[in-house]
Amino acid sequence: MSQQQRAVLDAMLRDGPLDLGGDVERQRAIFAEMMSHFPLPDDVTTADGELGGIPVMSLTAGSDSSNGTLLYFHGGAYAIGSARQAAGLTAELARRTGTTAISVDYSLAPEASFPAPVDEAVTAYRALLEQGTPAERIVFAGESAGAGLAITTAVAIKATDLPQPAAVYAASPWADLTVSGESATTNTTSDPSVTVEGLRRRAQDYVGDSDPAHPLASPVFADLTGLAPLLIQAGGNEILLDDATRLATRAAAAGVHVTLEITPDVPHVFVSFATILEEAHDALTVASAFIRKALGAPAERTA
Amino acid sequence: MSQQQRAVLDAMLRDGPLDLGGDVERQRAIFAEMMSHFPLPDDVTTADGELGGIPVMSLTAGSDSSNGTLLYFHGGAYAIGSARQAAGLTAELARRTGTTAISVDYSLAPEASFPAPVDEAVTAYRALLEQGTPAERIVFAGESAGAGLAITTAVAIKATDLPQPAAVYAASPWADLTVSGESATTNTTSDPSVTVEGLRRRAQDYVGDSDPAHPLASPVFADLTGLAPLLIQAGGNEILLDDATRLATRAAAAGVHVTLEITPDVPHVFVSFATILEEAHDALTVASAFIRKALGAPAERTA
Repeated sequence: MSQQQRAVLDAMLRDGPLDLGGDVERQRAIFAEMMSHFPLPDDVTTADGELGGIPVMSLTAGSDSSNGTLLYFHGGAYAIGSARQAAGLTAELARRTGTTAISVDYSLAPEASFPAPVDEAVTAYRALLEQGTPAERIVFAGESAGAGLAITTAVAIKATDLPQPAAVYAASPWADLTVSGESATTNTTSDPSVTVEGLRRRAQDYVGDSDPAHPLASPVFADLTGLAPLLIQAGGNEILLDDATRLATRAAAAGVHVTLEITPDVPHVFVSFATILEEAHDALTVASAFIRKALGAPAERTA
Repeated sequence: MSQQQRAVLDAMLRDGPLDLGGDVERQRAIFAEMMSHFPLPDDVTTADGELGGIPVMSLTAGSDSSNGTLLYFHGGAYAIGSARQAAGLTAELARRTGTTAISVDYSLAPEASFPAPVDEAVTAYRALLEQGTPAERIVFAGESAGAGLAITTAVAIKATDLPQPAAVYAASPWADLTVSGESATTNTTSDPSVTVEGLRRRAQDYVGDSDPAHPLASPVFADLTGLAPLLIQAGGNEILLDDATRLATRAAAAGVHVTLEITPDVPHVFVSFATILEEAHDALTVASAFIRKALGAPAERTA
């Protein structure tokens, strides 16, 4: 069953029209069109707003959103996507964890570039704290570039007066904008959706004249000491697999409480396909348990 | 609270009489004496037996042992310890997972040497299958050298007609008998109980004239393709930290479903101190969920 699910997903992504490295305007339109085919469940409510002047979309799903707040960062290689387009996964996480998600619509490249999204994320977090949500009730979360941004935001606040959040959840993080992981060589065939060329083009758009190895652009090179507990999940087929394993190794050496889960034979951000992929459901169960524990919330009721 | 627990445990281990690299007979006696101070809970039942001629101790704890079988391998650097002396952790795992543990009293070095324990483990597993326990109801588990042995056993059976077990749980694995991990340099001060010199002496006793980098002695160098789902947990203070991170990275690259959890500021095999250390309790909760899921058993009821 699951093998068939994996094959269907792989083919869907492999043959899909999205080209991460293509023209930004065109890819944004394609991605928006793709995402429009996944309507949100009826129990999801969304509201546009702002945090410290940064546009956000807040989102709840299901009957309970009292356990805390997910400060969420969508994916899209820092160039495409939006809080709304990522709302499917965000809603699933909010539902399973019983939280309110606040998804940050950070500026995209090439119109904006590094470190603008990091600065905006810190600004949004500061505003959330100032509104009275305590840090121990906030978890940073994100997928792909957004997972990288969740981690770099946690690194960036070490240089401020802001406390760490309760935890950080990174789904298939893009954490090395130099694209130097071993899996960038070994997984080019197995990865159905991400290409090294695409990543390099988007990295160039994002970092501009900065060093792609800057620790606030590429947290695999950051000093992770003092970071909140970190859960990293990724798929075994990803070009970005080694972004996950290197982050985990580096976090472990820095004394961070880190959990890494690699699910074989699944693609980049496989967790966003929970409705059609058993492995995604299972990984989200692990992520939900991690987030709930960090928030001091009771465990999810599962079958 | 937990910080105090960690300090007490660190001091206890740092000042304790056990010297991993010391004279084997003397260390065996010291270890046995230490372990005798930890009586098993009243609900634990043990029975000595054999599997395929290999001595084992079977163990149940609590009211339910129907979820499957843990084939367990105790620690002790391949030179000291026994199934009975490791029964505290084994019982805790059996209780939390609702399984029967069968702990293998494999031969110890220097009287026996590599690959005898691996061969004995394979023999015991084969006998367990032949007695009618299906592979999908068996999880390999172990701590320290026993965690290494759990993994090398799973590697060794790839060359036989035997199926993989449902999963492998490795607590603070010793998985590199060349002792070449970065943490063997960076964590010498933070590790309160294990020394590089001790590991090297015990590795020499165990591998004898064989290559310490042999994949069935040091699974960090093994081809892990096809291995059952693997959970690795270790403490951030360990000299053996990088045995855990390198195993996880290698398993991920080989397409294994692998979960790595590193808990900071705790020592080698910290999970065996669940009665006095909150972090150990939490890690065992994760391990129990992993094992139960692999066995298709319902989740543990937690507070």
